[in-house]
Amino acid sequence: MNRAKIIETIQKKKSFLCVGLDTDLKKIPAHLLDSEDPVFEFNKAIIDATLPYTLAYKPNLAFYETQGWKGLLSLEKTVEYIHSKAEDVFLIADAKRGDIGNTSTQYALSFFGQANPKHNFDAVTVAPYMGEDSVKPFLEFENKWVILLALTSNKGASDFQLLEYNNRRLFETVLETSKQWGNADKLMYVVGATQAEMLTDIRKIVPDNFLLIPGVGAQGGSLEAVVKYGMNRDCGLIVNASRSILYASNGTDFCEKAAEEAYNMQKGMAFFM
Amino acid sequence: MNRAKIIETIQKKKSFLCVGLDTDLKKIPAHLLDSEDPVFEFNKAIIDATLPYTLAYKPNLAFYETQGWKGLLSLEKTVEYIHSKAEDVFLIADAKRGDIGNTSTQYALSFFGQANPKHNFDAVTVAPYMGEDSVKPFLEFENKWVILLALTSNKGASDFQLLEYNNRRLFETVLETSKQWGNADKLMYVVGATQAEMLTDIRKIVPDNFLLIPGVGAQGGSLEAVVKYGMNRDCGLIVNASRSILYASNGTDFCEKAAEEAYNMQKGMAFFM
Repeated sequence: MNRAKIIETIQKKKSFLCVGLDTDLKKIPAHLLDSEDPVFEFNKAIIDATLPYTLAYKPNLAFYETQGWKGLLSLEKTVEYIHSKAEDVFLIADAKRGDIGNTSTQYALSFFGQANPKHNFDAVTVAPYMGEDSVKPFLEFENKWVILLALTSNKGASDFQLLEYNNRRLFETVLETSKQWGNADKLMYVVGATQAEMLTDIRKIVPDNFLLIPGVGAQGGSLEAVVKYGMNRDCGLIVNASRSILYASNGTDFCEKAAEEAYNMQKGMAFFM
Repeated sequence: MNRAKIIETIQKKKSFLCVGLDTDLKKIPAHLLDSEDPVFEFNKAIIDATLPYTLAYKPNLAFYETQGWKGLLSLEKTVEYIHSKAEDVFLIADAKRGDIGNTSTQYALSFFGQANPKHNFDAVTVAPYMGEDSVKPFLEFENKWVILLALTSNKGASDFQLLEYNNRRLFETVLETSKQWGNADKLMYVVGATQAEMLTDIRKIVPDNFLLIPGVGAQGGSLEAVVKYGMNRDCGLIVNASRSILYASNGTDFCEKAAEEAYNMQKGMAFFM
């Protein structure tokens, strides 16, 4: 999915919501556990319920890998299902990968559907620690995206990301350096909503890039602050919510409650557009 | 596998060799491609050939994920096979994971066999960028290890890992900070053999921790330099070779050539013990 199509979809749906599919067998409604593939059944229901309000879905690989190869099968079925339902959905593999060049190439082949057509994601989250040659292999695929970790939403973000040298914090150097590797048509950044004020500094370095913003919802970030400090003329934001939507209810009404939660977020977003 | 057992195995085998199972369908001998699971057949043969000379195996997750759920199945069979062959093998998931706390917990459950007994690794490689709460969930399992990226073997290592502030480079801060999170019974570090002289500085900060050293072999690092600058009284080194062993030959003699290559490395190691 290219940048023009992302922007068009945001305008059409008046939404820049991403639903994080962190599907946890311990948290999904009990009545689904008897089905053959509870993870897929849950995802399917959540997708049906939230699609009208949603720009993007973001399966979190950890929650699938933890089920071994069966989890990967649930993931493949989920990816196929999303593609079968709509062609205007942006699909993110939240995997936080990054390794030496020949290994990153394998990850890219994997997530971008070349090695396995059922794993056809539009984007993958990548960790920057290993530098340019760990990220570049992901940038070599047409209409595919790297979403590079810049400033994350968790407490540990302050351990290294905020370290300063030459009056520049590490996450700012990551932005400055990585923007030489690919432009705003290929590269997005993860910036936690819990760090919304810092979006002002971030926009000075990467005014045009889309930012994937986790941390609104369960982690306590505010949509208003994210929009205020981070929105650009193309919107430039993809705001993720996972647990607050997926687990809005753990009863048989989980779809309705998830839809309601997604709708409320979409309405909040439409207000700013 | 605990620290005492690792040291005992190194002394018994006179080896601190790790064989990286970066099994690539494009590189394995053609005659294996007709079998039902070529990746597993190849791994099994390599394990049989190299086990007498080897302390550790390190499947690189990317090479399995790229085959989708079938790749994960090959990996599970490989892990089971290794456990069935010997109880004194240290098994590393080279996955470079790291995410917010609840996600890292899922990865840890996955790799440490709690969620899936067939994924029973001793250690997992973890990226430090997201800080303490992204690493700690992996440290909460008995006799399991985190191998944290410190100074990697690739060119891009210089992009961020060598950045200096307060006269300390980022990888040194990663060492200093992370050693508060877990001791040398839980935490190892990745240090590339291509950076062997820097091992002197690294040993000043983490004198006791084991170091996983990739980059000897295909990437050009020298075993002698690694030993000279990095060995401590408990050995403290796990030196990885992947491609130079796996693909020593791509004919029907690939096992013999792999065994020869592993034996030569083990002999080189025994010389320093």
